Amino acid sequence: METLLRVIRQLIVLDEEEESIVSRLFTSRRLAAGEYFLEEGRTCRHVGFIEKGLVRYYLNVDGQEKTMYFNREGEFVCNYSSFLPKTPSRVAIQALENTELMVISFEDLQHFYAAVRGAERFGRLAIEQVFVTHIEQLRSLYTDPPETRYRQFLEAYPDLVQRLQQYYIASYVGIKPQSLSRIRKRLSS
Amino acid sequence: METLLRVIRQLIVLDEEEESIVSRLFTSRRLAAGEYFLEEGRTCRHVGFIEKGLVRYYLNVDGQEKTMYFNREGEFVCNYSSFLPKTPSRVAIQALENTELMVISFEDLQHFYAAVRGAERFGRLAIEQVFVTHIEQLRSLYTDPPETRYRQFLEAYPDLVQRLQQYYIASYVGIKPQSLSRIRKRLSS
Repeated sequence: METLLRVIRQLIVLDEEEESIVSRLFTSRRLAAGEYFLEEGRTCRHVGFIEKGLVRYYLNVDGQEKTMYFNREGEFVCNYSSFLPKTPSRVAIQALENTELMVISFEDLQHFYAAVRGAERFGRLAIEQVFVTHIEQLRSLYTDPPETRYRQFLEAYPDLVQRLQQYYIASYVGIKPQSLSRIRKRLSS
Repeated sequence: METLLRVIRQLIVLDEEEESIVSRLFTSRRLAAGEYFLEEGRTCRHVGFIEKGLVRYYLNVDGQEKTMYFNREGEFVCNYSSFLPKTPSRVAIQALENTELMVISFEDLQHFYAAVRGAERFGRLAIEQVFVTHIEQLRSLYTDPPETRYRQFLEAYPDLVQRLQQYYIASYVGIKPQSLSRIRKRLSS
């Protein structure tokens, strides 16, 4: 809970009562590696804050899993395109390591917005940050060749290279694992 | 200005003084068809609200223009991935029709957030709406074949089929104009 409060306090002021509201509204949840934060076809009912661990977002395309995105400790995890309009998710979110989260339901999040003075501001700033990374990813898919996308992955997630199987990184970059090996060789020489 | 106030009032309450603050902070701007709201390489300094007209967002990929997105009357236009971190934009935003906007600068937007009670809430809700459409577009690029993407375009923008040149629609769907013609024939038969 302390990490979450610290992240919120980086953007807004919280007094003691507001801290205790936050502490009541978020509850802890654990996922073992391989378990799902959100399964394909289910509606995303929670936003999670990752205290420890790593998840991936993926899509099922004709039986093939395409990895779109990662979140790790210190970040929020949610499929907003299911959570906000309350529609079934086409994206699955799976823990890749044993993961510890603080989660809040849609209803309790509305309560947070109503009960904490700076909450709307926090919500706006937090979603702006996530939004910018999404726009960049969309742009990158349109314009960047795989080698550039891999370099950007290294810059954005230097800590994840050791934690992720090559298979997931290749899928995120949008290439086969063999092609990723060739790119890695070229970059290291 | 009336349309903009109506759109804001759909999400939050504005008293008279707050209405006059909004009226002071937004200024009107006109773009002739072909003119730019944002040129590639420039930093996006304004958010615009489209009162009348139509713009497209595009990327330059090896000399080819790839259309990513459209906005028309009643919608906000901005490249948030340039506007928020104040970095040069790789995306260009061009008016496709004579377009009338109300624009607000980054600095005045911060003033809006500080001076209008519900402004943070409005900002959060407005960006959530745009964000959801972006996530869906990213998902669609990963999973959907061109015919599905064209059908979704028709659903999302039924009014734009008549207003846009085929060239732009094909570019948005991610195919050549000839392929779009074939899809249209198949759908109409």
